[in-house]
Amino acid sequence: MATDQNKFQAIISHCKEYGFVFPSSEIYDGLSAVYDYGQYGAQLKKNIRDYWWKSMTQMHENIVGIDAAIFMHPTTWKASGHVDNFSDPMIDNKDSKKRYRVDHLIEAHAETLPAAEGEALLAQMDNLLKENDFAGLKKLIEDKKIKCTVSGTSNWTDVRQFNLMFSTQLGSVTDEASEIYLRPETAQGIFVNFLNVQKTGRMKIPFGIAQTGKAFRNEIVARQFIFRMREFEQMEMQFFIRPGTQKEWYAYWKEERLKWHLSLGVSPEKYRYHDHVKLAHYADAAVDIEYEFPIGFKEVEGIHSRTDFDLKSHQEYSRKKIQYFDTEINQNYVPYVIETSIGLDRMFLLTICNAYEEEDLSKDGKEDSRVVMRFPAKLAPIQLAVFPLTKKDGLPEIARELMDKCKSSFFCFYEEKDAIGKRYRRQDAIGTPFCVTIDHQTKEDNTVTIRYRDSMEQERVPLDKVKEIVLNKINE
Amino acid sequence: MATDQNKFQAIISHCKEYGFVFPSSEIYDGLSAVYDYGQYGAQLKKNIRDYWWKSMTQMHENIVGIDAAIFMHPTTWKASGHVDNFSDPMIDNKDSKKRYRVDHLIEAHAETLPAAEGEALLAQMDNLLKENDFAGLKKLIEDKKIKCTVSGTSNWTDVRQFNLMFSTQLGSVTDEASEIYLRPETAQGIFVNFLNVQKTGRMKIPFGIAQTGKAFRNEIVARQFIFRMREFEQMEMQFFIRPGTQKEWYAYWKEERLKWHLSLGVSPEKYRYHDHVKLAHYADAAVDIEYEFPIGFKEVEGIHSRTDFDLKSHQEYSRKKIQYFDTEINQNYVPYVIETSIGLDRMFLLTICNAYEEEDLSKDGKEDSRVVMRFPAKLAPIQLAVFPLTKKDGLPEIARELMDKCKSSFFCFYEEKDAIGKRYRRQDAIGTPFCVTIDHQTKEDNTVTIRYRDSMEQERVPLDKVKEIVLNKINE
Repeated sequence: MATDQNKFQAIISHCKEYGFVFPSSEIYDGLSAVYDYGQYGAQLKKNIRDYWWKSMTQMHENIVGIDAAIFMHPTTWKASGHVDNFSDPMIDNKDSKKRYRVDHLIEAHAETLPAAEGEALLAQMDNLLKENDFAGLKKLIEDKKIKCTVSGTSNWTDVRQFNLMFSTQLGSVTDEASEIYLRPETAQGIFVNFLNVQKTGRMKIPFGIAQTGKAFRNEIVARQFIFRMREFEQMEMQFFIRPGTQKEWYAYWKEERLKWHLSLGVSPEKYRYHDHVKLAHYADAAVDIEYEFPIGFKEVEGIHSRTDFDLKSHQEYSRKKIQYFDTEINQNYVPYVIETSIGLDRMFLLTICNAYEEEDLSKDGKEDSRVVMRFPAKLAPIQLAVFPLTKKDGLPEIARELMDKCKSSFFCFYEEKDAIGKRYRRQDAIGTPFCVTIDHQTKEDNTVTIRYRDSMEQERVPLDKVKEIVLNKINE
Repeated sequence: MATDQNKFQAIISHCKEYGFVFPSSEIYDGLSAVYDYGQYGAQLKKNIRDYWWKSMTQMHENIVGIDAAIFMHPTTWKASGHVDNFSDPMIDNKDSKKRYRVDHLIEAHAETLPAAEGEALLAQMDNLLKENDFAGLKKLIEDKKIKCTVSGTSNWTDVRQFNLMFSTQLGSVTDEASEIYLRPETAQGIFVNFLNVQKTGRMKIPFGIAQTGKAFRNEIVARQFIFRMREFEQMEMQFFIRPGTQKEWYAYWKEERLKWHLSLGVSPEKYRYHDHVKLAHYADAAVDIEYEFPIGFKEVEGIHSRTDFDLKSHQEYSRKKIQYFDTEINQNYVPYVIETSIGLDRMFLLTICNAYEEEDLSKDGKEDSRVVMRFPAKLAPIQLAVFPLTKKDGLPEIARELMDKCKSSFFCFYEEKDAIGKRYRRQDAIGTPFCVTIDHQTKEDNTVTIRYRDSMEQERVPLDKVKEIVLNKINE
C-alpha cells in the first residue's frame, strides 16, 4: 500500500495540539530526535506500559519483572558485542567537515542514477559492507565521484566505524573515574541479573524476566517523529529455556505476542510478520512484528532466538559460572533464550495512528467533520468526561458527586464551560470513550445522558449505573 | 535516637537475599553507587510509583502528568543555574593523585581533633565555603597540615569546582554534535513544557504538572545503599500559582504531602519536618520531610517555594514570553511555583525499613524467630500466595482455579512444594499479606485456611470469599 505522508503529518500536528507529544525543550528550538510526552501522551504511554507489564508478569506465574539501572559496568558491553559491533561506517568530507553514514551517502547517489545502474551500485555496496571492506567502500565512493552536498567536492577521509553508544564519565575521584555507556538496550540488564533472580526467586526453567526502561542510541539519522529516537523506551522479556527447545518456544512467543497486539482490537490485516534473513551475531532465528503505519509497514516488536550467546559471553568475561541445574534431567547447562522486545514509543505511535480518524460528518448538504481518537477504553488517557449542562441549578454539584464516586477507579475529566457539542468534540480529539451530561432532568429522575465516542450515540442511563458501565468497558 | 547500623546492614542483606535490590552488574563486581531492583523490588517500586502517580494526578483534577526526556537542550541547565552552581569544591593530592571533596577532607580531620578545636575548624570552613573562598580553603588545609590518607603528604593542588552533571555527546555529524547533560533533576522538564501544557490542556491557575523519572548526579561520595545513588528516580510535582499566594500554597502542600506519607500507615513519630535555614538560589522557603531510618532522620521529600525563578530564567534564556493571563484579575504574570519533590528510591528504602522486623517467636523455651516485611497490602509485591497442601488429590487443581480467578485483579504467587510452615515464612520474608491453603477439607466444604502475615493467625473462610477479602484490604 502506498504511504500517506499527509496523514502522518496530520497525526504529528494533532499530537502536539492536543498535548500528546511535544518536541523536547521546544522553547530552546528543540533537541534533534528527542521528544517529551505531554499530559495526555504521558498517561497513554503509562497505560500501554502498564498493560504490557500486567500481561507479561502478573498474568504469567513464571515471568517476573526487574528494574535494572541505565548505568552498567562497562565490561557488560564488551561481552554483549556492542563495543565491537554496534557501529556504522562513516566518512567525512575534508572540505565541508560534514560527516556521512557511508550507506546513506551511496544510497542517495544511487537514487540519482538510472534504475539498473543504481541497483548495481547498491549491490556492490552491500557486498563491501558485509565484508567490512572500508578501503573498498572509500574507493567505490571515489570511483563514482560521489560529492558532498555542502562543499560539492569528492575530497574524502578514510571510512571509519562510529559507535552508536553514548558514553560518559562515572566518578570524579581520578583513580576511580571510568568511561561508562548509557545502555543501548535493556536486555543486558536482565542477563547480568540472571543468576541473582534465578537463585533468590527459586525460578525453574522455563521462566522469563521482564523489564521496561529507557535505552539510548546515538542514531546518525534519527527521524520519522517518535519512530526512531535517540532516547527511547523498551519493554523486553527474556525467556530462559532448555537448550534444544528453542524452536518450539520461538514459535510459541511469536504467536503469543501477535495475540497480545490483537487483544487491543487492532485489525489483523494491519499486522504482518517479517522474518529476518540476515541474522544478528547472537541469533539463530528472528522475526519482526510489523504494523502498517501511514509511512508503511514498520517494525514494532522483535522476537529473537538468542541462543546461549549472551549468558555464555558474560560467563567468559566475568569468569563466573552462569549455569542452571535442571533437576528434571539432572544436568547443568547455560540456558537458551527467546527474547520478545517491543519499543514502547513505537507501540504508542501505533496506538495513536490506529486510533486517529478524520471523520466526515456532512449531512444534508451541511459540511461537518471531526477528528476522533478511537483508543481502546482501557488505554484512553481520560476514560470518562463529566459535564454539567449549565454552571448553576445544582448541576455542578451532582457532577462533582459523580466525579468523586468514579475518580478513584479510572481517569475522569470535569468541564462546565462551553456548549455541550464543543465539549464532546474536544473529548473526541483526545479519545475519551464516554461523556456524561448532567441536565435538569437528572434532578427529576436521576438519569443522565451518556454519549459514546465511537458511534456518537447518546442514551439516558441511571446516574448510579455510570461507574459500572465504564468499568465494564475498561475491563473488557 | 541512636542509629542502628546493624539493623541497616541486616536490611541490605535481606534486600539482596530476597530479590529486592542487587548491586548493579554484580557479576562484574558492581558499579559504585548504582543498584538494580530484583523481582520483588521492581514490583514494590512500581507499586509506590503508581500510588504516588494516582494520588497526585488521577485524584487531583487540576494536576496533570507529563513524561519529559532525560536529554534536554543544554541551555536548560544554564537557565536553571546547574552549569554555574551545581558543583562541589574539590582538591587533589599531587602525590597520590587522589581527589577529595574539600568539605569531607576537612570534616574527617576535624573528627580527629578535641571537640572544641574541631568545631572551630568546621566553623572556619563553613565561612570560607559560603564566600567561595577557594584560596582560603587551600590555605586552611595546608595550615592544619591535613594529609592525604593514601600518600600521607600535604602536597595539594588548588581547590577547583567540580560539576555534578554527567555529560555526553549528542549527534555524530561533526557540525551538529553538541555536549549535553543527563538531567540532574526532573523539575526542568516541567518548566520548559509549562506553556505547551498550559495552552494545549487549557489549564487554569492554580494547577500542577507531575512527573516521575530518572535523574543523574555524579556524586563524589555516594553511599548508604540506595539512599544516595548516582542514578536515581524522582517523583516531582510543580504547582503553578498566582504571585503573592505562595505562603498559603506552601503551607498547603507541606501538610498534604505529610498526609500522603501517613496514608501508608507509617507511625507519625517516624516523621518530622526540617525547615531549611540556608535557602537555595531559587527558593523563598523550603522544608524537608524526614523519616527516621535506622541510620537516623534523613530527607525523603522536599517542599520548595521556588518563586518565579525558573520560569523567569527560561524566559530570559529562550527569549520566549512565558506568562499566564489570569482572567480573574485580568493580568499577565509569570506564575510562582511550589514544588513537591520525593525520591522514589528513598521512598522505597523507607518502605523497606518501616516494614522490616525481626520478630522473636520463642515460646515455652523453644527458640523461634522470623523476618517479616509488614508492607501495606496495596504496596506488597505479592498480595496473595496460594498453596495446595499436597501435590495430589486434586488440590493443585482447586488452587489453580483460585489463581485464575484472582490473578487479573492483584499479584498472586503459587507454590506446591515444601511444608506449609516453610512456605508461610518465605512469604513473610517478602511481605505477602495473605496466604491461602487448600486442603482436603476444601473438597468437602469449599472452605480454605487464610493465614494473615502480621498476626500469623489462621482462619477458615469460604473459598469464594478469598478474592473479596484481599481486594478489600488492598483498596483500604
